[in-house]
Amino acid sequence: MSALVESAVYRSVQGVVEKNQELAQQVLKNEARINQLELEIDDMAIGLLALQAPMASDLRLVTAAIKINNDLERMGDLSVSIAQSALALMKEPVIRPLIDIPYIAGLAQSMVRKALDAFVNRDAEMARSVLASDDAVDNMRTASYHELISFMEANPTQIQQALYLLSVIRNLERIADHSTNIAEDVLFLVKGIDVRHHNEARQASENSADVAQ
Amino acid sequence: MSALVESAVYRSVQGVVEKNQELAQQVLKNEARINQLELEIDDMAIGLLALQAPMASDLRLVTAAIKINNDLERMGDLSVSIAQSALALMKEPVIRPLIDIPYIAGLAQSMVRKALDAFVNRDAEMARSVLASDDAVDNMRTASYHELISFMEANPTQIQQALYLLSVIRNLERIADHSTNIAEDVLFLVKGIDVRHHNEARQASENSADVAQ
Repeated sequence: MSALVESAVYRSVQGVVEKNQELAQQVLKNEARINQLELEIDDMAIGLLALQAPMASDLRLVTAAIKINNDLERMGDLSVSIAQSALALMKEPVIRPLIDIPYIAGLAQSMVRKALDAFVNRDAEMARSVLASDDAVDNMRTASYHELISFMEANPTQIQQALYLLSVIRNLERIADHSTNIAEDVLFLVKGIDVRHHNEARQASENSADVAQ
Repeated sequence: MSALVESAVYRSVQGVVEKNQELAQQVLKNEARINQLELEIDDMAIGLLALQAPMASDLRLVTAAIKINNDLERMGDLSVSIAQSALALMKEPVIRPLIDIPYIAGLAQSMVRKALDAFVNRDAEMARSVLASDDAVDNMRTASYHELISFMEANPTQIQQALYLLSVIRNLERIADHSTNIAEDVLFLVKGIDVRHHNEARQASENSADVAQ
């Protein structure tokens, strides 16, 4: 499941950045498999809870797996949206603000990979490094939004194209958020520390950035 | 938790539609309480799994509660985003496309209420009525998007304001999606039927609408 989703994120981004139509279409083709796997993993996890009644750290592992499975499926959906934007943008000339997308995409992909490695290896330090990257993605996202809004004001005939790019950036930022969720689940699993809502002030500033879209 | 989230959705919408600043600010004030409740409910549910090792329908109830709790917390976050848009739009003149927002908001709020009633009363029929409303929200959303894009092309100086409205509509549509998730969990709970990903074609068309943002 992790490998399929990581690959979907990578291919959708290449679809946008390299205008690679084949990779974008592979993302659409693999969506059904990811959705199917989500159901299978969920059934397996609930079956484990029912039949084995796991305790303590085993219970934490199964509940973490249920949550991470759900985050992965949503990341798969977001990759599909990015791939569809990629296909819509395929024949359009590249507009300047695209230059930030490869950088945001690189950051988001690195967060995805680290979060999943942290889960597989139960590596708390790597999980913390994912949390540290989240602010960088949010800041880049906000800057790109302002740049794209100025672009739209100056080029009203290209608003539709700019909205596709806004959508790509927003979806990359949501993929980064899901990576953060996974990293938080890993910390809970490994250390027993609940770091969700660990900084309400930070969350408030993210929400306010979200509105500037 | 349900009552707090339902009230957050209602108040955030009134913030946009009636330009009611006080209600919008109450949403921001109540966010921390919703986040705190999510953690408490999650802990209680995991405690139940660990100590009681529930079987069959009891196990389905606890796992449904864990998922619904997560959906509710996200709906709380989306209400905060809508309330922040409401505050940003407070002093702007009303632009024409706003007329659709009360209608979409009414549909989304009705889905929220029905999904939560369906859970509390284990009412499969009401849960199905939520699934049926989802397409209506998606269609209205797509129509409003096209209208707002035309508005931006014609009024490039008001792009920022139109983007706030796009954000409100997108967040309402995501609130409707979470209501659908809850209704699906209720059907699984009551009937043992898994209706997630029940119609991949429908999902594909939603994703493609999402890209048109």
